[in-house]
Amino acid sequence: MRRFVIVGQKASASGEFLLDDVPGTGGRLDVLLRCVRAAMLYSHGIRRDVVVYLLLGGGPKAPRTLRFEGAAATFLRPDERSIGILVKKALVLERVHHAAARGGAVGGPFVPVRPGVGLANGGLSLILADLGGAHLYMLDEGAPDLRSETALGGADDVFFVGDHLGLDEATRASLSAAGARPIGLGPVSVHAEDAIAVLWNEVDRRDATRG
Amino acid sequence: MRRFVIVGQKASASGEFLLDDVPGTGGRLDVLLRCVRAAMLYSHGIRRDVVVYLLLGGGPKAPRTLRFEGAAATFLRPDERSIGILVKKALVLERVHHAAARGGAVGGPFVPVRPGVGLANGGLSLILADLGGAHLYMLDEGAPDLRSETALGGADDVFFVGDHLGLDEATRASLSAAGARPIGLGPVSVHAEDAIAVLWNEVDRRDATRG
Repeated sequence: MRRFVIVGQKASASGEFLLDDVPGTGGRLDVLLRCVRAAMLYSHGIRRDVVVYLLLGGGPKAPRTLRFEGAAATFLRPDERSIGILVKKALVLERVHHAAARGGAVGGPFVPVRPGVGLANGGLSLILADLGGAHLYMLDEGAPDLRSETALGGADDVFFVGDHLGLDEATRASLSAAGARPIGLGPVSVHAEDAIAVLWNEVDRRDATRG
Repeated sequence: MRRFVIVGQKASASGEFLLDDVPGTGGRLDVLLRCVRAAMLYSHGIRRDVVVYLLLGGGPKAPRTLRFEGAAATFLRPDERSIGILVKKALVLERVHHAAARGGAVGGPFVPVRPGVGLANGGLSLILADLGGAHLYMLDEGAPDLRSETALGGADDVFFVGDHLGLDEATRASLSAAGARPIGLGPVSVHAEDAIAVLWNEVDRRDATRG
């Protein structure tokens, strides 16, 4: 199972953004919505072997984390508005706050809010704890090329991806301390969702080679 | 200058789709909107050396073609709704129909409707004529891998990309007759916008190698 963590430095942790203006009212949550599509969907299907974390670092309720599980997700549509509606509905479930205040639901800090979607109060440290033992990579411009990273493509790979602001220094430091390896994707700095497409392409190729 | 042609078999050629439900009312025009972003934008910038054609094959006014020029585009935002608003405004300009009925505007069949955006009545044959001499590629599952395609990455490369339905047989036949080479991207069939991200990554790498 491959996992992606999208770090939204300012992305709205509450559901108070406007669907008609997600970039302006959601702290560029739109970037993260597009990353959900790129990480979880392929042509006419959902990747079942993927988990996506959206770290929502903006607004009064931050940090909160949404977790999408491909194995359990249903009706995940590719268009940005549909994913925005899903996220908005998940975030306005105030009972999650209450459940977490009571010490979290059974089975960990993530409370189910939709099929295959869980919500937790917390950010990077919560995510790192949830990941457990895994091979961590963080996307970083100028880092060694993913095509040369011979270990890449293992079953427990985790990829940390920054939003339009990239990964902030504190996150980088925490990830380095957790053993994350920086990898680069190529000579041009691309949008986060395009980075995920390029990552998947490399991983899919290696999976196919292994048979 | 690289060019991308996105073939929307059912995508709405009129502006009558709803921004709140582009997939359902626009003949999956949403796929094409996302392709505009993937083809034209990188992190914090517009690729100036790109032209994107959207072939709109659905609805009573079809076929029509929108052409986006990176060199002249302004304020192209990455979120799907913003690109949808731009396309909707461009398509409702009825004067284009009238100009075309008079024999087209000066400078070819594309009438300017926004900075860097032109609209024409016509589909594949119009696009092929507009492309002139160029190296044509069409994305095709199972075709030879783009990484092995030594000629790929030339300055006049054109990439034909299908929508969620792929490229239809008639389009494939026309492209083959025009000399288009089929290329594959990898073992998994991905969304059109992800295919464009993978294509750009390969082309960017080759550009960087050539220096």
